[in-house]
Amino acid sequence: MAQQELGQWRDLAQLREEIDQLDQQLQTLLNQRAQCAQQVAQVKTATEGEDTQFYRPEREAQVLRRIMERNTGPLSNEEMARLFREVMSACLALERPIKVAYLGPEGTFTQQAALKHFGHSAICLPMAAIDEVFREVEAGSVDYGVVPIENSTEGVISHTLDSFMDSGLQISGEVVLRIHQHLLLGENTRPDKISTIYSHASSLAQCRKWIDAHYPGVERVPMPSNAEAARKVCGEWHSAAIAGDMAAQLYGLKKHAENIEDTPDNATRFLIIGRHTTPASGEDKTSLMLSMRNQPGALYQLLEVFNRHQVDMTRIESRPSRSGAWNYVFFIDCTGHQQEPRIQTMLAELGERAAEMKVLGSYPKGVL
Amino acid sequence: MAQQELGQWRDLAQLREEIDQLDQQLQTLLNQRAQCAQQVAQVKTATEGEDTQFYRPEREAQVLRRIMERNTGPLSNEEMARLFREVMSACLALERPIKVAYLGPEGTFTQQAALKHFGHSAICLPMAAIDEVFREVEAGSVDYGVVPIENSTEGVISHTLDSFMDSGLQISGEVVLRIHQHLLLGENTRPDKISTIYSHASSLAQCRKWIDAHYPGVERVPMPSNAEAARKVCGEWHSAAIAGDMAAQLYGLKKHAENIEDTPDNATRFLIIGRHTTPASGEDKTSLMLSMRNQPGALYQLLEVFNRHQVDMTRIESRPSRSGAWNYVFFIDCTGHQQEPRIQTMLAELGERAAEMKVLGSYPKGVL
Repeated sequence: MAQQELGQWRDLAQLREEIDQLDQQLQTLLNQRAQCAQQVAQVKTATEGEDTQFYRPEREAQVLRRIMERNTGPLSNEEMARLFREVMSACLALERPIKVAYLGPEGTFTQQAALKHFGHSAICLPMAAIDEVFREVEAGSVDYGVVPIENSTEGVISHTLDSFMDSGLQISGEVVLRIHQHLLLGENTRPDKISTIYSHASSLAQCRKWIDAHYPGVERVPMPSNAEAARKVCGEWHSAAIAGDMAAQLYGLKKHAENIEDTPDNATRFLIIGRHTTPASGEDKTSLMLSMRNQPGALYQLLEVFNRHQVDMTRIESRPSRSGAWNYVFFIDCTGHQQEPRIQTMLAELGERAAEMKVLGSYPKGVL
Repeated sequence: MAQQELGQWRDLAQLREEIDQLDQQLQTLLNQRAQCAQQVAQVKTATEGEDTQFYRPEREAQVLRRIMERNTGPLSNEEMARLFREVMSACLALERPIKVAYLGPEGTFTQQAALKHFGHSAICLPMAAIDEVFREVEAGSVDYGVVPIENSTEGVISHTLDSFMDSGLQISGEVVLRIHQHLLLGENTRPDKISTIYSHASSLAQCRKWIDAHYPGVERVPMPSNAEAARKVCGEWHSAAIAGDMAAQLYGLKKHAENIEDTPDNATRFLIIGRHTTPASGEDKTSLMLSMRNQPGALYQLLEVFNRHQVDMTRIESRPSRSGAWNYVFFIDCTGHQQEPRIQTMLAELGERAAEMKVLGSYPKGVL
């Protein structure tokens, strides 16, 4: 027994030695990578001058995609991409940290999106309103802005769409934060004995149809947060909570039903806005703003163009235009980059049919 | 010229190729490190059983210190340590993510401290009050708690000290977030023409003495945040802002005077609390709680013990005891670990002189 323990400990010591050696190699490579990044910056400054863009969204998207493709584990694609995002963020900050304005306050999902996209070496500053984010980017006091564009509970963020009407800024990226909800039970709770479901009001709303179908007579009690709902359920035998994975893990609750949100793609989407256009990354999206004359079949004629060019429209939203009482403005996302001839032809045709058209930007499809 | 440009572009392509190769090597090493960490976990589970502690604060502190010692740059020690914290966090989460309760809400400095210490792969959950953090750790629903212990503006967080009186939890680490304030001016502002200083009320308070000495007659105007103060100053010729580096960089303001906070070590300190003792890391601190009989010279006798054993006392705070009307409780931090014979001898002596003594824990001195 003593000998076995000794053997085990020797193994542990060996493993730790191995980890230390790996760490040394990692550190050397990280500094080499940082040196290369510095050289890239020097070359770019020499050719492009003072106004050089060190941050290249399309290049970063390509690097992350490649990393995820060739990943063998045991680290998951998500964790690996997150680590490399931080590495790129640290290398970039050596030259000059990226400055980012986001819709605050601190601690919101928009901050989370900003950090997910730019890494923790970026300087991220909260703004009080969406149009302030636009203004800071336009004024050049920050490099990029991060604003929410659609949200499963609140729908489209119309402030953001409206800000685009008056702005010359370009979309240079998107970030998607996925949110999944589960029905969580304590260990000894029987699913057929539930009389109360606790959750935050917005989560109860997100899962309304599912609750109607599966627990129609059950009382729904709003709580200050999903985490508190989960905690409450720990000690109760006849209640359940709706909350995410984190709360389930934290309180050791069973997931009786997973992903019960009514919209299968329950997520909040954010846009990165900047002053520059972004070259194609190989997997891109293009966002447009179009206004139509108020005549029968106008919308159909619009959609027909996308269909004929076999361009996949991923989203369409309409907003009342500010300029004319009867005009509508459509915000459209489609796959493809405005550098592609196929998209260029389609855009030209759309421009002829629309009263007004503005390309808000082509940008890499959100990685992860 | 065209040829030079071509040459430059070829260089860029070469550099990017080099970065891609470095990234591939980095990725391989990261997955190898994760595999080693998995093997460590297997060995530990085999010898220590179900209740194994995978997270070892003293080991992590050692790894980070070594990384900072041998760092050659260009990445700074801080950035390098941050990257490795994330790597360790990701490797650890493969086995089982660490669960951490912190004093919420989200977006506070305490969350920042939790993420700085445990990395972004940990599950961090906000609690509404300090004693809730203690309760969650005691109940075993989380592995660790993060609570503020001292804050330059509010002083010691007495709630945290009081919670230790009733708790059997151990301190297993500390995190320090440093906060520096500067006097910031717009490019064309003359320092001798300033009539107004803008800043958040707590920053104005933190720099009160400095302002009294250097700008006695100047109006102090509180703002909702330091960032807004900095922004306001951009457009004004006769005003200055007090804010940190981030705001200075963001708004391109000059630092007319740096580190003007009255306490030179302006920082917020947080404690990591857990259920286990932490072995020595080589550079440790020990925290004690002592109550003295209310007799003349009691405090002096206490301090004499530290002095005689040449143990460096880094902090002392007194709180009224809850048990007797005339007793005081002292919270003392000193350098050294309770495993060291020198500290053990001193603790034994202190225990004899004190009415009551509790060792709150020995833990690695905060890295960074």
